[in-house]
Amino acid sequence: MTKTIAILAGDGIGPEIMAEAVKVLNFLKTSHGLDIALEEGLVGGIAYDVKGHPLPPETLELAKRADAVMLGAVGGVKWEPLDISLRPEKGLLGLRSALNLFANLRPASIYPELADASPLKPEIVSGLDILIVRELTGDIYFGQPRGIRTLENGERQGFNTMVYSESEIERIAHVGFQSAQKRQKKLCSVDKANVLECTEFWREVVIRVGKQYPDVELSHLYVDNAAMQLVRYPKQFDVIVTTNIFGDILSDLASQLTGSIGMLPSASLDANNKGMYEPIHGSAPDIAGKGIANPLATILSVAMMLRFSLNRADLADKIETAVKKVLSDGLRTRDILGSATTTQYKLVNTQEMGAAVLNAL
Amino acid sequence: MTKTIAILAGDGIGPEIMAEAVKVLNFLKTSHGLDIALEEGLVGGIAYDVKGHPLPPETLELAKRADAVMLGAVGGVKWEPLDISLRPEKGLLGLRSALNLFANLRPASIYPELADASPLKPEIVSGLDILIVRELTGDIYFGQPRGIRTLENGERQGFNTMVYSESEIERIAHVGFQSAQKRQKKLCSVDKANVLECTEFWREVVIRVGKQYPDVELSHLYVDNAAMQLVRYPKQFDVIVTTNIFGDILSDLASQLTGSIGMLPSASLDANNKGMYEPIHGSAPDIAGKGIANPLATILSVAMMLRFSLNRADLADKIETAVKKVLSDGLRTRDILGSATTTQYKLVNTQEMGAAVLNAL
Ligand SMILES: CC(C)[C@H](C(=O)O)[C@@H](O)C(=O)O
Ligand SMILES: CC(C)[C@H](C(=O)O)[C@@H](O)C(=O)O
Repeated sequence: MTKTIAILAGDGIGPEIMAEAVKVLNFLKTSHGLDIALEEGLVGGIAYDVKGHPLPPETLELAKRADAVMLGAVGGVKWEPLDISLRPEKGLLGLRSALNLFANLRPASIYPELADASPLKPEIVSGLDILIVRELTGDIYFGQPRGIRTLENGERQGFNTMVYSESEIERIAHVGFQSAQKRQKKLCSVDKANVLECTEFWREVVIRVGKQYPDVELSHLYVDNAAMQLVRYPKQFDVIVTTNIFGDILSDLASQLTGSIGMLPSASLDANNKGMYEPIHGSAPDIAGKGIANPLATILSVAMMLRFSLNRADLADKIETAVKKVLSDGLRTRDILGSATTTQYKLVNTQEMGAAVLNAL
Repeated sequence: MTKTIAILAGDGIGPEIMAEAVKVLNFLKTSHGLDIALEEGLVGGIAYDVKGHPLPPETLELAKRADAVMLGAVGGVKWEPLDISLRPEKGLLGLRSALNLFANLRPASIYPELADASPLKPEIVSGLDILIVRELTGDIYFGQPRGIRTLENGERQGFNTMVYSESEIERIAHVGFQSAQKRQKKLCSVDKANVLECTEFWREVVIRVGKQYPDVELSHLYVDNAAMQLVRYPKQFDVIVTTNIFGDILSDLASQLTGSIGMLPSASLDANNKGMYEPIHGSAPDIAGKGIANPLATILSVAMMLRFSLNRADLADKIETAVKKVLSDGLRTRDILGSATTTQYKLVNTQEMGAAVLNAL
């Protein structure tokens, strides 16, 4: 049966990098008989500009109907003055919530070819391979009540609610433990249980779920300590499971350890492995339209989609091998060129990098 | 008039490092006529063990009466099973709140002598000198309502409230701008204004306060991006001002960039420059009682106290110069020895390091 893939390119460099991912998908369709139909939709700032809302009803309908969603990036300075309810980010948050994509998988691993790019010393990061499992539909991101109110004394006050129910914690904990089972069997749960009751409860539930996974070694860190440990000795981690807001911060931190955030894909999954796939990097308005963005994180997100939602690990492997090949052939977009001498490497633009991956496929 | 200094050594390595700080204070008293009286009190796990509460009334009374408070460290695995309301951390949080210590100043700077110790590449961190101004008495740390409740459907749920009123944001913003005025005149305010109304309000108020400081260059970052930038290019920052929970995470992250968290002091100030002073590192239960902890962060906290609360910048300078001297003399506690060959440096214990500083004074 034909699988429908929603293609939501979004803002900034989104359209440029998505174009390369679409070429890869079309190649797999024609040359490897991958039975897919691509349908484009608007999301983010561009959707606001064209339709008046960052998540127009027709995009939501498409995303719900599709078997998987490819997302580029959303946001840009242009839309920052908008009311928070109409900002590009609400398009993304709306999709996560409406599709129930509660499990966000964010790998932070280093390609040996790019080890130089890290701001950390080689001995600290060489061979780094962390998976961050971030809860994505709960926490202070969606908690009610929220807003800005005026107190009786006339003073204004901003407020949000951090909240997790037992079942929300249980299901993400299972994803954490099962991810660890497929890797080094170490799971670190990150919370602030010494201060926040919400995450004291988080820890309690994670420990209880852990009893079903005796083969996984479970540890706990407070979020401040986790941020420290990620810098001090990141290789101590295998899988990290954490809340939405802590995961937002820690996964971005972890991605920078690699020095090549332009390489990192992510998956956001529901309970049935339907997913939304996107690069970890943002819309990079500063380089948008220049054709120099790195399309590899988006192309690697296609690989994640093939593995998790389309059950085609074989094709995912092919893409990942092709990406490794272009790297070892010395091709580099600007972001991963580092301070190396250009004689060693070949500086390429977005389209050239995409073409090289197609070639390697 | 004699100034009263409360000495709260706390748990783990607290008593060992505080003993060296007390020697420094007593030396300044006898040799430089510093008119102080030291009074000891119990706080944290030890206070729970002896008095049944991490912040006994007599300690609170002492802290309120004192002109300044020196704190060692609180916490340890031993007390983790306790109810959250009786944990050692509540002693610390109680002091911050009761004394209205809303402005937490956390420098993260690198001693040239210790540049090697950083996990980051030298070119990324050499000369690093950041000041993090963390709001300390508001936010989700103290917000109500909070707790663990059972919903109508029988499911349990943990929840906390993030909240900031206008006046709370204003006063910490002023501290941020004024700190920047004394330094490189750059202030970066960190929030999550694209998702959280509470911090959308934070940004609005910081911008308004900024109009009074036209000489300070104000910028804004989302917290996830700030975590990335701290790893990628930390030297872009001068002063960072942020909320309690984001400051908790980012200041610990920033401290690790230096690779020598055993060197970093902190100050927590009220509106009248009364303050509590403590090392940034924790109680380090793993090395407690061994006499090998680094006392320099606590001794440098004494310097901060002299500068901010006792109006004796001259003596603060003396201490800081003495610390630099012992470092350039090659003395190292284990934590700052790094992977260097011991022939270059002299490995010393807690007491030897304290004695060396006294000598240099
Ligand atoms: C754009 C923003 C709403 C989003 C988030 O905070 O989740 C982004 O930072 C991310 O991590 O995907
Ligand atoms: C011990 C803990 C309550 C405290 C905090 O979270 O504020 C600590 O991490 C700190 O940063 O001083």
